[in-house]
Amino acid sequence: MKFCSSCGNRVVLRIPAGDDRERHICTSCELIHYSNPRVIVGCLPVYEGRVLLCKRAIEPRRNYWTLPAGFMENGETTVQGAARETWEEARARVSNLDLYRVFDVPHISQVYMFYRCDLDDGEYGVGPESLETELYREDDLPWDNIAFPVVYETLREYFADATDGEFPVRVSAIDLSARGAR
Amino acid sequence: MKFCSSCGNRVVLRIPAGDDRERHICTSCELIHYSNPRVIVGCLPVYEGRVLLCKRAIEPRRNYWTLPAGFMENGETTVQGAARETWEEARARVSNLDLYRVFDVPHISQVYMFYRCDLDDGEYGVGPESLETELYREDDLPWDNIAFPVVYETLREYFADATDGEFPVRVSAIDLSARGAR
Repeated sequence: MKFCSSCGNRVVLRIPAGDDRERHICTSCELIHYSNPRVIVGCLPVYEGRVLLCKRAIEPRRNYWTLPAGFMENGETTVQGAARETWEEARARVSNLDLYRVFDVPHISQVYMFYRCDLDDGEYGVGPESLETELYREDDLPWDNIAFPVVYETLREYFADATDGEFPVRVSAIDLSARGAR
Repeated sequence: MKFCSSCGNRVVLRIPAGDDRERHICTSCELIHYSNPRVIVGCLPVYEGRVLLCKRAIEPRRNYWTLPAGFMENGETTVQGAARETWEEARARVSNLDLYRVFDVPHISQVYMFYRCDLDDGEYGVGPESLETELYREDDLPWDNIAFPVVYETLREYFADATDGEFPVRVSAIDLSARGAR
């Protein structure tokens, strides 16, 4: 950020009065520009014990498999956002969304929220950001080709939880810089 | 938003190729500026069955009581943010943070995440954004002077849950425009 989005003049990094960290502040109108983490909302859609995955058509991690997920938009709820992304990426409608997994990824200032849900009628398609989509059992799942650590961990936990039918909400942080891309 | 924060030229509202909603796009460098919901992280600190509340020293809702909470910052986890806000507003250290309540407030593009936690040693003070702080039992709590609907609901649910010792994670949306300020 170099310019004030309100008046167009230069901004500087400075700690505002009463604050404890640097913000971009306009040198002309003195507006303080805050930057905050973004929320990624997604679904873990289940049909007859199988989970719906999407093979990514776009970078990063093109050709790798992921759960349908994306940036939450203004004006929607986390549940609405998770369902919207599932429609956009897998042309699938989902019901009974239950919060299942929260990941903090502080190095890139992101919070992931995955909702476990039912895939309506077992029907799905392929959205523009996917190359293909598929329902996978645990044993058939392409474990070596999962796009992101948060997806890998969510899937591992889901199949473990499914054996006893208890799905506690878990929160943890992922350090992408220490983990590599799996 | 009127100007591009990267190059300082005018932005326009337009739907980018492959997108389905209007974004601010720079008329010169063509950068797309996304705007996304913000996360408010907070704590419900408990000590010997009592909950720590803060009387707000700032608007909105000055003089009303709230749980310690505030905007999540870049580079931190939701847990770190919730603990930081509790220190800033109530000079209290907390442990064993468990996600307890998630609220979507889509009309103002906010997501609240409250963590239930222990108040270390029952010690607390008064931070610069608070007029006073206090530990309250359910019966003594200033129910008529709670700052925000999300705080009111979280407290009601907490004391109900405490009677049977089960604290399920709940997610729901609040429509501020329909509820008023209680």
